[in-house]
Amino acid sequence: MKIHSTLEKDSILIGRFGLCQIRLINDSNYPWVLLIPERENITEIHQLSIEDRRLLTEESALLSATLAHLFNADKMNIAAIGNHVPQLHIHHIARHKTDPAWPAPVWGKLPTKPYTAADLEETADKIADALWC
Amino acid sequence: MKIHSTLEKDSILIGRFGLCQIRLINDSNYPWVLLIPERENITEIHQLSIEDRRLLTEESALLSATLAHLFNADKMNIAAIGNHVPQLHIHHIARHKTDPAWPAPVWGKLPTKPYTAADLEETADKIADALWC
Repeated sequence: MKIHSTLEKDSILIGRFGLCQIRLINDSNYPWVLLIPERENITEIHQLSIEDRRLLTEESALLSATLAHLFNADKMNIAAIGNHVPQLHIHHIARHKTDPAWPAPVWGKLPTKPYTAADLEETADKIADALWC
Repeated sequence: MKIHSTLEKDSILIGRFGLCQIRLINDSNYPWVLLIPERENITEIHQLSIEDRRLLTEESALLSATLAHLFNADKMNIAAIGNHVPQLHIHHIARHKTDPAWPAPVWGKLPTKPYTAADLEETADKIADALWC
């Protein structure tokens, strides 16, 4: 399955669940991970089959709990927006009361702050390790 | 179960699914409906039991498909944010390319534009009718 060019440019692959690619957004302002169901031509969660929705829900819950623990989040923000990029992708953002956009949602608040190459890889590895341990 | 005072003030009850209250946000800028699981002390989807998550997912998908059809949406925005109000509530917003915030997410974009009392009731009834037909 092809990942939309914008999502591919903005994120790197952490790994795969049964349904979704797990991708880290290259923005060090927040720990921000996408789940992208590996299904063609889906723009809305309600278009998935009931079996795929069940997978998505449990993959999302596992990812959310893992990020909350790993980054000691004050709140998880989970969202399927897709106004710019129609391919279904679900944002998982670990928010802190001290982060630069708090308490606003992150979209459109701050310029992207890319990780260094080393930090990007280290953060992706840290999440992968936590998900597969 | 008690609904947080802010959510209660900003929305009216449309009806109930097995798990969630269905509430219409009193903002005529967009068709905007909350699902609020009737469970105590839950702030994150990942804190729900697997059975409750399955219910939430199917209630959310049914609501999303219904709003998309009823309001001829260009995109559904589905989100659990909760940075201001910790009680778990999931936004379902029917977005249009012609709406005043498009393509940005709705939060913090525009002042609330309350419905007239008659329009608020009519919109809530229209959604209730569509969900139960």
